[in-house]
Amino acid sequence: MNIADLKTTLDPHGIGQEMYRLISELYPICRSITGNGFRETLSIIKTHIPLKVHEVPTGTQVFDWTVPKEWNIRDAYIKNGQGERVVDFRASNLHVVSYSTPVHATLSRAELKGHLFTLPDHPDWTPYRTSYYQENWGFCLSHKLFLELQEDMYEVYIDSSLEEGHLTYGEYYLRGESTDEVLISCHTCHPSLCNDNLSGVALATFLAQHLGAVSRRYSYRFLFIPGTIGSITWLSLNEAQASKIKHGLVVVCVGDSGKSTYKRSRRGNAEIDRVVEYVLKHSGNDYEIGDFFPYGYDERQYCSPGFNLPVGCLMRTPHGRYPEYHTSADNLDFVQPDYLGDSFSKYLAVLNVLENNKRYLNKNPKCEPQLGKRGLYGAIGGRSDAKTSQLAMLWVLNLSDGQHTLLDIADRSGLEFDLIRNVADILVKHALLQECPEPEQSRA
Amino acid sequence: MNIADLKTTLDPHGIGQEMYRLISELYPICRSITGNGFRETLSIIKTHIPLKVHEVPTGTQVFDWTVPKEWNIRDAYIKNGQGERVVDFRASNLHVVSYSTPVHATLSRAELKGHLFTLPDHPDWTPYRTSYYQENWGFCLSHKLFLELQEDMYEVYIDSSLEEGHLTYGEYYLRGESTDEVLISCHTCHPSLCNDNLSGVALATFLAQHLGAVSRRYSYRFLFIPGTIGSITWLSLNEAQASKIKHGLVVVCVGDSGKSTYKRSRRGNAEIDRVVEYVLKHSGNDYEIGDFFPYGYDERQYCSPGFNLPVGCLMRTPHGRYPEYHTSADNLDFVQPDYLGDSFSKYLAVLNVLENNKRYLNKNPKCEPQLGKRGLYGAIGGRSDAKTSQLAMLWVLNLSDGQHTLLDIADRSGLEFDLIRNVADILVKHALLQECPEPEQSRA
Amino acid sequence: MNIADLKTTLDPHGIGQEMYRLISELYPICRSITGNGFRETLSIIKTHIPLKVHEVPTGTQVFDWTVPKEWNIRDAYIKNGQGERVVDFRASNLHVVSYSTPVHATLSRAELKGHLFTLPDHPDWTPYRTSYYQENWGFCLSHKLFLELQEDMYEVYIDSSLEEGHLTYGEYYLRGESTDEVLISCHTCHPSLCNDNLSGVALATFLAQHLGAVSRRYSYRFLFIPGTIGSITWLSLNEAQASKIKHGLVVVCVGDSGKSTYKRSRRGNAEIDRVVEYVLKHSGNDYEIGDFFPYGYDERQYCSPGFNLPVGCLMRTPHGRYPEYHTSADNLDFVQPDYLGDSFSKYLAVLNVLENNKRYLNKNPKCEPQLGKRGLYGAIGGRSDAKTSQLAMLWVLNLSDGQHTLLDIADRSGLEFDLIRNVADILVKHALLQECPEPEQSRA
Repeated sequence: MNIADLKTTLDPHGIGQEMYRLISELYPICRSITGNGFRETLSIIKTHIPLKVHEVPTGTQVFDWTVPKEWNIRDAYIKNGQGERVVDFRASNLHVVSYSTPVHATLSRAELKGHLFTLPDHPDWTPYRTSYYQENWGFCLSHKLFLELQEDMYEVYIDSSLEEGHLTYGEYYLRGESTDEVLISCHTCHPSLCNDNLSGVALATFLAQHLGAVSRRYSYRFLFIPGTIGSITWLSLNEAQASKIKHGLVVVCVGDSGKSTYKRSRRGNAEIDRVVEYVLKHSGNDYEIGDFFPYGYDERQYCSPGFNLPVGCLMRTPHGRYPEYHTSADNLDFVQPDYLGDSFSKYLAVLNVLENNKRYLNKNPKCEPQLGKRGLYGAIGGRSDAKTSQLAMLWVLNLSDGQHTLLDIADRSGLEFDLIRNVADILVKHALLQECPEPEQSRA
Repeated sequence: MNIADLKTTLDPHGIGQEMYRLISELYPICRSITGNGFRETLSIIKTHIPLKVHEVPTGTQVFDWTVPKEWNIRDAYIKNGQGERVVDFRASNLHVVSYSTPVHATLSRAELKGHLFTLPDHPDWTPYRTSYYQENWGFCLSHKLFLELQEDMYEVYIDSSLEEGHLTYGEYYLRGESTDEVLISCHTCHPSLCNDNLSGVALATFLAQHLGAVSRRYSYRFLFIPGTIGSITWLSLNEAQASKIKHGLVVVCVGDSGKSTYKRSRRGNAEIDRVVEYVLKHSGNDYEIGDFFPYGYDERQYCSPGFNLPVGCLMRTPHGRYPEYHTSADNLDFVQPDYLGDSFSKYLAVLNVLENNKRYLNKNPKCEPQLGKRGLYGAIGGRSDAKTSQLAMLWVLNLSDGQHTLLDIADRSGLEFDLIRNVADILVKHALLQECPEPEQSRA
Repeated sequence: MNIADLKTTLDPHGIGQEMYRLISELYPICRSITGNGFRETLSIIKTHIPLKVHEVPTGTQVFDWTVPKEWNIRDAYIKNGQGERVVDFRASNLHVVSYSTPVHATLSRAELKGHLFTLPDHPDWTPYRTSYYQENWGFCLSHKLFLELQEDMYEVYIDSSLEEGHLTYGEYYLRGESTDEVLISCHTCHPSLCNDNLSGVALATFLAQHLGAVSRRYSYRFLFIPGTIGSITWLSLNEAQASKIKHGLVVVCVGDSGKSTYKRSRRGNAEIDRVVEYVLKHSGNDYEIGDFFPYGYDERQYCSPGFNLPVGCLMRTPHGRYPEYHTSADNLDFVQPDYLGDSFSKYLAVLNVLENNKRYLNKNPKCEPQLGKRGLYGAIGGRSDAKTSQLAMLWVLNLSDGQHTLLDIADRSGLEFDLIRNVADILVKHALLQECPEPEQSRA
């Protein structure tokens, strides 16, 4: 079985539901860029794919950065004068600013205010805040609740630790025919936020699971990492091997109702860029494609000028373009199985083109070969439209001069990629076509 | 006299009428890809140009193909029970499927049906059908007539032969200053069909006749060949010389009332592509230009990847885009002298640009030369617009750096090619410009 | 102080008024391509900038041209039978065709007519005419006056001389860090015409004055020359050094109310072309950009194929596109201080980008540097929008791979050039960026 078969046998609806179940399971865990919440998350993913867990000690120098202290938290609250928990970490881990230092104090409302974060424009929602690289503490709460806080003395308590420890990340490597790699990277460090990025975590998990079961031209590397520091750490520890990555995608925000959006790699015309553009163009759905810009997710690091890897970002609504982004409203209602399943299908379609996007040589390049004597008119079983298949054969023969990939041929002919690939297979079987060898350095 | 003079002296209306007369003369002949009808056609063309007739024996291997048996036919009919010829080859050679094997039998209407071809959507028209590479027989008739056939016993008779023989084609070579060639190719194998392709045959014949009478920069090769197998045969027998073809056009469907349509060569940006685009753009008529695709006429073979010759296809309405295509309605009413003459003019205009599209060097490239002291202001006799001529001189001088052809200069300046060429001649006479030598290998 | 400071400290309104005053002072002088009027003009410019005056003898061969005789004029008139000066050089120097030979004769109205030039479409305006390279004489007058001329005998008198002498031009060279030059060229040969080209003369003068007071990356060369023969003469005498000109602008027609118009260099994609396009696009005003064509002003010579210098032409309404062009209506009302000042600002903005359009190398190219630990978030004083500055840093870091100039980065990011440059300076100070060395041959 290969990826093309996966594409026809997997039911997007079913996959979407599995993804949604995994998101639901991971949702309550308090994750950050380090700590036990991240480890617990990886151990759940491990029930689906046998990923390898790496632990990188605090203080490790990774390019211009240093692996930070490990953060863990057990409880946190703000109690009013009556001893009631008016803000309670147990209700939502978003209530505590991530990486808050431990605190236990009693403060007036005025003193407390400087440590509180709300969203006046969305008074029912709790914001998500972090303070990774500046030691501080704080609480996030709905603006509605904030307005209800009376003049009072408040007990604030954060039972956290910020200590020497490790940065943890998960890696799953699937060897293919070639050592050339496709990278699938997702940041896994956000707490109870579904679209950003439990949706990406779930998509990567099930993609990895299914790819593990089929034959592969490329090797695949899945990274479950904390945002920014995670990709920097991986690139730093794997600098020499990074050039094996021939194509890559950062998986984020793939569960909301918005249209598919692709952010090109820094190169702008890498094969992954052309493939995703082709898939979205022929998806039948609305979509948007934009150029690389140096902020967003981990593509910032993969596409830094010293690496310049061909890594794009295939998402639905991009970060910051939906109001629920980085708030408590990015919850289990905001992502839906059907959107997740649709995103999964598109990733699969992209990988299907990538895996099959080879270059061929017409072995009979002078004039057309006589298709009729080989019974190649109407040769594709089950196709009602024999004329289209014949046309596809003529296109493949005409453009298989070693300069054009099958995607080039699909693009130029306006015919669908799968037909072009199917026809190429038939022509290979009839010895009219042969695969071009790939450049030396990219063979296994 | 040169081609530019032809362009001004030849009357498109008159040429159109001559072309129409030749079409009328060739129309009744039953042609196929081999056989006496093809020979008779060439002998009539020979009354206009001294072409060379080649005979290639049946069984000759030409790349992946084999020259087929020669087909000839003397008579054919379907008689009803009363002995009446209800379908009669003598009335139209379209009534017999081309390459029909001999048959003489009596069949019921039901048995007969499997050998009959009609056009239900156009009940008055007879379709044109062939069975070159699968031995079979059949009749074509109007759907109206088909519906009138009663339950009856029918005598079918085809007095044909399919035997060892030859594939015949005509070739006319006109030597020019350079051995670089312009190819003009037309398929000559269709029976009583006017637009496809007696129109092309007539255009090629008169173009050859007139080019024979003028000085030529390029050598010209005219091919009157059967479709597909003819170009494959020629390319196979002339493989080593094919690279002399620097520009080429396949002439088809040039007599209908539709707009001019150009199908680019596979290269897409060959000089012939640019020249035709320029001519059509400045023709004052509506036109259409499209990219190469690997079906259509003999450009399929010329543009196969092993040759990739710069051969486009300049026509009016392309094959398959008019309902009369490959039916009895592609008759002497469907093509008209004026459309034929207009197509001829456009071919001439294309060749005029090709012949004159040279590259020059400004011999005084540092600052402008002083035109006034040479009397070059208003130097072009008969031109009312002295300012435009002066402008043309400045453009030619400015861009004649060996990088730009006269067509480049016409394109960039927006001035007409003939003015640019005229001005270049004047500047050469005043020693301000010299022609760039062409690359070694393309000189005679 | 550098050009960026000039841009912020100079008041366009004030500069516009200074330019207008200089134009008013130069307006009455009778200039031509040679002669004392040209010298007097240069001596007035010399009160602003210490330009060097060159005298090139009549008869000097300059490429295909010869320096013409020097022309001077003292008085001229047409008197009617009553002895009244009906046309009087003292009223306007436009009344005499420039380079008119001396004449003193009495002619009938009919005889006189062949020497009179008027503008029937603008009966109140006097045309501007020259006869540099054909010896002749003539008068220009309003069509209204022309119609009033009675049947009479007229005394015509032109007290001019056309003798061996010199062609005069002014040159001002400002040495910068590099010997690479920016050329600013203006034709200074027109008599009482304000937009064409006293406006250009005034702009060049004040630009030179202010550039003299600041530090410069480039050297600057200002040419005050007669049109056509002046640039040909300069190029001929300075042929070997012309290649030092890395960017150039011909300054003309910069005082009228029309929108800014840029005519690209012959190269079309030279750095000056990109810079001017960027500046006009971000100017907030309407503008127009067009390709090079080989007529117009001295760019014709700078862009002749033997030099092909990257010299464009930044103007307001181009020559010939306003009816006042080359008539007495191109007067002190037609140009206005505000338009002059606006043009000056745009030239300054162009030079500011040119001077700062360097290429840098990210010294920390693998993953992003940690900006936070360097205090670089919100590092730009006075900027309210810290987020935009941060974005600009990320863009500069991401694209500083030695391939992209700051203008490339501004273009691609959509951020303003000055912000990009500012941010680059800060990153250099923090040792995150270093300037790329320029190619050897272009250093001082």
